[in-house]
Amino acid sequence: MIVNIEVNKVKQLGDYVRYLSTMGIQRANSGHPGLPLGCADIGISLYGNLMKATSAKPDWMNRDRFILSAGHGSMLVYSLNYIFGYDFSVSDLANFRQLHSKTAGHPEYELELGIETTTGPLGQGFANAVGTAIESKMMAARFNKPDYNLFDYKTYVLMGDGCTMEGMTNEAASIAGSLGLDNLIAIYDDNSVTIDESSMDLFREDVKGRYQALGWEVLEAPLGTDIEDVNNKLATLRDSKSGKPKLLIVKTKIGQGLNSLLGSHKAHGAPVGAKEIAYLVENSDLKSVAGTSDQVEAQELLEKQLLTGDFFNISNFKDALGDVLEKRESYYTSWETMFNDYKTKFPKEYAELLEYRSTGLTQELRSELLNYSAKADATRNTSADVLQIVAKHTQKIIGGCADLVASTKATVKGADYITRDDFSGRNIAFGIREAAMGGIGNGLALSRDFIPFTSTFFTFIDYMKPAVRLASIMKLNHLFVFTHDSIYVGEDGPTHEPIEHLGATRLIPGLYTYRPANDMEMAFSYLEFMENEGPAVILGTRQVLNQKLFGLELDRAKAYEGFKKGGYVLLDTQTTPDITLVGSGSEVSTLLESKEMLESKGKSVRLVSIPCLEKFEEQGSEYVNNILGNGPIYLMEAASHRGNKAFYRDNILVRDITTFGMSGSYKDVSKHFGFVAEAATKEILEFISK
Amino acid sequence: MIVNIEVNKVKQLGDYVRYLSTMGIQRANSGHPGLPLGCADIGISLYGNLMKATSAKPDWMNRDRFILSAGHGSMLVYSLNYIFGYDFSVSDLANFRQLHSKTAGHPEYELELGIETTTGPLGQGFANAVGTAIESKMMAARFNKPDYNLFDYKTYVLMGDGCTMEGMTNEAASIAGSLGLDNLIAIYDDNSVTIDESSMDLFREDVKGRYQALGWEVLEAPLGTDIEDVNNKLATLRDSKSGKPKLLIVKTKIGQGLNSLLGSHKAHGAPVGAKEIAYLVENSDLKSVAGTSDQVEAQELLEKQLLTGDFFNISNFKDALGDVLEKRESYYTSWETMFNDYKTKFPKEYAELLEYRSTGLTQELRSELLNYSAKADATRNTSADVLQIVAKHTQKIIGGCADLVASTKATVKGADYITRDDFSGRNIAFGIREAAMGGIGNGLALSRDFIPFTSTFFTFIDYMKPAVRLASIMKLNHLFVFTHDSIYVGEDGPTHEPIEHLGATRLIPGLYTYRPANDMEMAFSYLEFMENEGPAVILGTRQVLNQKLFGLELDRAKAYEGFKKGGYVLLDTQTTPDITLVGSGSEVSTLLESKEMLESKGKSVRLVSIPCLEKFEEQGSEYVNNILGNGPIYLMEAASHRGNKAFYRDNILVRDITTFGMSGSYKDVSKHFGFVAEAATKEILEFISK
Repeated sequence: MIVNIEVNKVKQLGDYVRYLSTMGIQRANSGHPGLPLGCADIGISLYGNLMKATSAKPDWMNRDRFILSAGHGSMLVYSLNYIFGYDFSVSDLANFRQLHSKTAGHPEYELELGIETTTGPLGQGFANAVGTAIESKMMAARFNKPDYNLFDYKTYVLMGDGCTMEGMTNEAASIAGSLGLDNLIAIYDDNSVTIDESSMDLFREDVKGRYQALGWEVLEAPLGTDIEDVNNKLATLRDSKSGKPKLLIVKTKIGQGLNSLLGSHKAHGAPVGAKEIAYLVENSDLKSVAGTSDQVEAQELLEKQLLTGDFFNISNFKDALGDVLEKRESYYTSWETMFNDYKTKFPKEYAELLEYRSTGLTQELRSELLNYSAKADATRNTSADVLQIVAKHTQKIIGGCADLVASTKATVKGADYITRDDFSGRNIAFGIREAAMGGIGNGLALSRDFIPFTSTFFTFIDYMKPAVRLASIMKLNHLFVFTHDSIYVGEDGPTHEPIEHLGATRLIPGLYTYRPANDMEMAFSYLEFMENEGPAVILGTRQVLNQKLFGLELDRAKAYEGFKKGGYVLLDTQTTPDITLVGSGSEVSTLLESKEMLESKGKSVRLVSIPCLEKFEEQGSEYVNNILGNGPIYLMEAASHRGNKAFYRDNILVRDITTFGMSGSYKDVSKHFGFVAEAATKEILEFISK
Repeated sequence: MIVNIEVNKVKQLGDYVRYLSTMGIQRANSGHPGLPLGCADIGISLYGNLMKATSAKPDWMNRDRFILSAGHGSMLVYSLNYIFGYDFSVSDLANFRQLHSKTAGHPEYELELGIETTTGPLGQGFANAVGTAIESKMMAARFNKPDYNLFDYKTYVLMGDGCTMEGMTNEAASIAGSLGLDNLIAIYDDNSVTIDESSMDLFREDVKGRYQALGWEVLEAPLGTDIEDVNNKLATLRDSKSGKPKLLIVKTKIGQGLNSLLGSHKAHGAPVGAKEIAYLVENSDLKSVAGTSDQVEAQELLEKQLLTGDFFNISNFKDALGDVLEKRESYYTSWETMFNDYKTKFPKEYAELLEYRSTGLTQELRSELLNYSAKADATRNTSADVLQIVAKHTQKIIGGCADLVASTKATVKGADYITRDDFSGRNIAFGIREAAMGGIGNGLALSRDFIPFTSTFFTFIDYMKPAVRLASIMKLNHLFVFTHDSIYVGEDGPTHEPIEHLGATRLIPGLYTYRPANDMEMAFSYLEFMENEGPAVILGTRQVLNQKLFGLELDRAKAYEGFKKGGYVLLDTQTTPDITLVGSGSEVSTLLESKEMLESKGKSVRLVSIPCLEKFEEQGSEYVNNILGNGPIYLMEAASHRGNKAFYRDNILVRDITTFGMSGSYKDVSKHFGFVAEAATKEILEFISK
């Protein structure tokens, strides 16, 4: 193995990490010292002796990734990244957890800072790591050539007891084992301490045995303080040709380096106090840096530093660091040399690679989506059809389903599934593991080489919500294709019929939820997703919609302008409307039918489609009021608007769903809930006659 | 072991289950035959030879439970329950998946029908089963006496590949193993077929090894058709004294009993066709019942039955059934005899048991909650305080946290945690397993002996949402105590600050979300939960609130009447208000401060608290408009109202949160988002001067 930093210097720098981490937490009076204290040496070993990555090129496409799944230990990453030259200063560390600082409470995705993903909700980082490990293999399958391993990056992920307990970690680990992701190295900080002392009593499982059963190669380091052993075992796992993902279980002691808090569960999640840090200083190489002669003196010095934020800086540890930064940079420069050769030798592949790494979409794709037209259908089929168009134009599109491809139809047709032997495919069969699918999808999106889609029934977004939220926080280009979007699921009954989900996804900042009413709006939804940064939810129906809405001959550029505003007049009336009908998705079909019924009774009717209510709202009240008009409004959505209706304007009659769904044929269920044109027409006539 | 039904008769009844299940699905033209076909014999063995339960007393408190976690195989349960005398008729089976039928697409909780819980979303039933197994042990610890095992019921849970893949199952299994739940017997229908053919390729793990690592006793039945072997192994596991939960992995073949679909993944989730069912009839004992002489004739007969719904009924199988129904009933009658003795011998315990089994709350508890008053505090502490009052008055209250008891404070003080050796405690340390916590909590609530609370940070409801939804569908008395309810979490940053969650829980039918503003509203929230059937979310703050809101001297009975309406005038003005301030929870504190500022500027201000917006809406527009008034409204909630604002009345200024949160001290974060009285006052003055 490479040893850039010798054991005694790993220890010295590890103690510096301990010092920085506990000081940052002390100053913030908030944070989790347990993990940085226990894993400081492991972190130095990883960065110094194992990983190929450099602050000189934080977005190097083949850098090894380090993901701190146990995000509450964020000071570990900040300290390490500071030491290894990323864009952090000592005062950034001293401003831990302060508003607008670079050192947020939990790591926030920012490549320039060497932070590969946002973590905090436990289990997510681990699933992200499985995603990046798959990404590495998928890119390798596409671009590597003999002697030209453009992509062979590894992912290191650090987890604690919390991540290990979370079920989504097991899902992701099962996928990793099945795919033989030998480029994934997980480290489990096994300190047997969580926040609540009693929690460990219900965590008696044999983690090693479980991971072995999941198809992992597992080693144990019985003593986290034995730096050489940890180093060697990590190197052994990294270099092992077992064809399996690897796990190192490191037995650490909570509060490593401290005095009275060593081994105490109090060291997990609260500041340890200047006295304990002074003990750390006095009992390590930090003593010579501090120049103090006893603990009292050290504590006085630290207390001053805590006031000023003027922590010891890295220049005090130049000797220990040696030329490691240069060595880390050299991994990149060697690769770059190879890459330059590659450009010359494989111009076609190089051009393809550039396409993967580009953003934006081609004029051809844009035009095809703008002008897309199809026969009336269930919009899950329309969605599948549009997905093929996008996938045809850009290889970046890959993705998969949680065992429902036959239902949601979200697949790249004609492309293979990835397998442990071949990662050149574009489809991923996640199995019935929605939570991991969400997190792995986020991991696949992190490098922005791929634009992943993930898919299941809309009601099962519930299992992947934490990942949907993180995709939104990180503005990842992750497309969520959810079908069977309302009560019209029918036979499967209430557990499978989403009710509250439409309103709930709309509430998530940074996410746009599209509920298209026809072929045109479906294509526009994909276009909007492709044109913009960030995730989107695109919804599809199980049932066939009103054929009159499909194949509309409209000025598409103009229609797209309307669509982009989230709500627009789909069909207007010549006179002042007696009623404005408003709905999304399948309800636009019902409303169109009702419109005709109302018109046959001499009523003047405007039909407004709201494919993306959030965008509609964003236009501001002038636009909204212009579209909705001043007269009576009939809002029909087969979804819950519960609570909010208290604040709705009083000229609005809302037909929403206020209970759970029912099992029955979708036509019976629709009728039961009043989501048919006859019932709508009846209540509209009553409403406007008042 | 008991053998009420001999092997050849198990086979005969099993084939009858196959027939009923495939016919029901065929007639509905919708459903999943795979599981009932594969597990029909297992089901007959379970009901006939293993379980102690009877249709004569479906709510017998010590009945063995059967939970079909793989809920899509619902026809298995309906067929079995029909055969074993529960309130189903042949025509109920023939009306599978029709509106208002007893035979919904997925099993729906209904004790009278022998359906122990609602399943469908995979993994949930398994977690419920862990919950009922804990319930059995907790009740045993409270009430069993030597020779009087009032509670020793076992839980049998049937799962397929889907449940086995789901992460929450692993969480729940880890808890089960840690607690040594030897009264839990899981059966894994290992048929290696899911909906998508490719899914199994990413499911290569060693399930047996995993469960052993989780602390389970595992046996394998290599041939699902070997009825005697399956029977014996189930009995061995049931009777084993290993002190571990048990798993039987049964290797089944998809489409058992069919011809061309035997072994085909097409047999999983779609009707198999009359021809295949005719093959089943002609190649089993059903042939003599049908009286047909070849497959063509059988098919003709079946096609007629499919039209009329007049399936073969149980009277044709009386011989096979023998006296099993009587024997099943005898388990109950023996127990009842013992129970009658118990009443006499242990009158105190018997009286206590009656209390567990009663509903409603005592006058003392009601009165204490009505008059509760406390000093200003973070409402997570107020919540904890009120929880102690409830827990003091009723032993039914038990529960736990996902490793955050130090933060959410949701614990029964002075009570023990349950352990594998002692289930008399009232607290459960779920560990960092929110998903399983939700499902286990539901399982604990099913018998209605206990009223469980489960607790974590509000943002992590995301991990338990599927269980929250099912609690709402089943109207379970499950209390969700979520704290750290908004941006005021502060330092932990965006991943830990709920934004969209308040609006999202409000949308869930049947669930009430309480966001109390002070001590009084907190006590009222608990009171409302205790007074009514169904789940509730009660939210608490991390930060201390406005002290002027605490210890208010009000006519409590009157205040409670207002509170029950979900929104009410907390502080009114003598004149027509210049502005009506509306908010919930911590924002009422801010609005009160702002009210005083506005009044100092001569403005007339009404302050409306909306602790439960759903209830407020339910009062109807007359009440709502009366409370909100006709003048300008300022609505402040540190939560997302995204999308809905497009429909809000135009005299309303909304201060909500439209992005994710930030990491920083809560005061800095509040200021950043404008959730301080100064900023509110400024924008209100601008708003009303327009």
